[in-house]
Amino acid sequence: MEKTKMRILAVYCCGGLGKEVMDLAQSINKVEDKWDRFIFVDDNGAIEEINGSNVFTFQQVVELFKEDKVGFVIASGEPHIRRILQEKVEQAGYSLVNIIAKSVSHISDLTQFGKGIIVFPNCYIGPNVKIGDNCIIHANNTISHDSELGNHCMLCPSVSVSGTVKIGNEVFIGIGATIKDEIEIEDYAVVGIGSSVVNKLDERVIVMSSPARKIGLNTNNSVW
Amino acid sequence: MEKTKMRILAVYCCGGLGKEVMDLAQSINKVEDKWDRFIFVDDNGAIEEINGSNVFTFQQVVELFKEDKVGFVIASGEPHIRRILQEKVEQAGYSLVNIIAKSVSHISDLTQFGKGIIVFPNCYIGPNVKIGDNCIIHANNTISHDSELGNHCMLCPSVSVSGTVKIGNEVFIGIGATIKDEIEIEDYAVVGIGSSVVNKLDERVIVMSSPARKIGLNTNNSVW
Amino acid sequence: MEKTKMRILAVYCCGGLGKEVMDLAQSINKVEDKWDRFIFVDDNGAIEEINGSNVFTFQQVVELFKEDKVGFVIASGEPHIRRILQEKVEQAGYSLVNIIAKSVSHISDLTQFGKGIIVFPNCYIGPNVKIGDNCIIHANNTISHDSELGNHCMLCPSVSVSGTVKIGNEVFIGIGATIKDEIEIEDYAVVGIGSSVVNKLDERVIVMSSPARKIGLNTNNSVW
Repeated sequence: MEKTKMRILAVYCCGGLGKEVMDLAQSINKVEDKWDRFIFVDDNGAIEEINGSNVFTFQQVVELFKEDKVGFVIASGEPHIRRILQEKVEQAGYSLVNIIAKSVSHISDLTQFGKGIIVFPNCYIGPNVKIGDNCIIHANNTISHDSELGNHCMLCPSVSVSGTVKIGNEVFIGIGATIKDEIEIEDYAVVGIGSSVVNKLDERVIVMSSPARKIGLNTNNSVW
Repeated sequence: MEKTKMRILAVYCCGGLGKEVMDLAQSINKVEDKWDRFIFVDDNGAIEEINGSNVFTFQQVVELFKEDKVGFVIASGEPHIRRILQEKVEQAGYSLVNIIAKSVSHISDLTQFGKGIIVFPNCYIGPNVKIGDNCIIHANNTISHDSELGNHCMLCPSVSVSGTVKIGNEVFIGIGATIKDEIEIEDYAVVGIGSSVVNKLDERVIVMSSPARKIGLNTNNSVW
Repeated sequence: MEKTKMRILAVYCCGGLGKEVMDLAQSINKVEDKWDRFIFVDDNGAIEEINGSNVFTFQQVVELFKEDKVGFVIASGEPHIRRILQEKVEQAGYSLVNIIAKSVSHISDLTQFGKGIIVFPNCYIGPNVKIGDNCIIHANNTISHDSELGNHCMLCPSVSVSGTVKIGNEVFIGIGATIKDEIEIEDYAVVGIGSSVVNKLDERVIVMSSPARKIGLNTNNSVW
């Protein structure tokens, strides 16, 4: 079997989430054999290897590997950093790819994915759902029919999104949060851990608790 | 292989939940080959096709298909409408069937199911659990040992029911809600999104929050 | 194929959780053929059989079966009783074994397990996670990268533990609870149903709600 050209997977950011994305990609590869090599990319430069995979700076990747040899996924949990890194990768001529756990998840054939999407195991994604570019759907998520995600969103583990929910760009939804049906969540909003969103969230609003109430504004594009 | 008589699956109600049930049934059919044809049934009459499946009125189904050719599941999220539609289907001589995702769920061999049960993927249903007729167990649900559900119940995604819980008829449990062990929830109760039920719920009580507190009464058999 | 010596699985405690552990082990055995016989152990002595498996007292097990023939798992949900029973089993020369649902879970190859671990289906356990001895990870749990559990912990269904969380010994985490990243939970703490832990929990603290607040102290090593 002839191999496709792009056979190196680059996981950009080598923190805890990076280790999870790498682990997921390698477990998928045991079944699908999509990748020959796995590398981390991190511009910190202090670490050379994590869990058996080399860590390169982005500059080193540019010097070592041609654009058609490497597919990228972004492994930062900060939506705004996700956007910045996607732009950096694409401006250098590289592409984002999708890493989607299938075997222990149910993803409707009627789901539409953008590029750079990461879906962890044990997720349910229903029919007529649209996911924009560069989003992470972590483990045990549920996203029901007709819901939409914008770009660069981070959904932590065990998030449950009801049907016909509209989520904007660079939205962060914390672990175990739930979103009521037909709710809109605007750009840069942050939903705290275990919160239940029952009303529309305006741009940059930070909410917490169940039912969720406003506790601040995301003025500096930063969750942590 | 000789085919069984009942080879048309009718999903009654063609809203978002109907699309999800259809999607689930079709994904199961790829593995099990139980159905030759999938149709929606909806008495609204305005829509002719959804996601590639025809939409008939119930009257049209009666005119077109014999009782032993069609199996029904009810795809309304309103428990009371679920009951009304089950009665309508059965009074016309048709039967309810079960649609149960197995491959990405764990369902004990010691679980007892009624008829017209829909179980979505990524569920855990423990031993000695009894589920009545015409219930929906949506994705990522957990129902522990010795718990019981009555008829026409709707459990939204990511609901967690502890052991030895007793849930009555026409109960609605919202997305991400949790129910403590040995709790009783009486008929027509409504548990709001993300709520944690730690005390008995009397008939028709509506609760919200964590721990859940009473916020009203379900006087008109209607969740929405 | 030569059979290994230890071919009886003993599930110590025959309450609801015991029935779940037995059910899980038997479902795994359909795929893996690890055990020839399944028994319950319970010192109550009143019940002779549950769901088709015999119930013995521990004293009867000692009289009937040699130490290398029986592997134990502890099926109490009380962390302190879990510790007492582990000590009893090991002092009599028997061993704890692991019962880990694989097919409908994702468990990183980089997860480190102690002995006597029970992992139910639909779980995600990330890379570089360490689980001590004699813990139960119930269904639909998520435990993210670099988190640590001590010994004898009970994680109820649908618990979500973020990354780099440190959980001590004999900790009980209730159904649907969520734990923020980089939080420490000290020994004997109890997290109530559906609670969201966002701050460090000191030894023996009992918390409830979202965000979680202190509601008492676990002074007597007893959850129920």
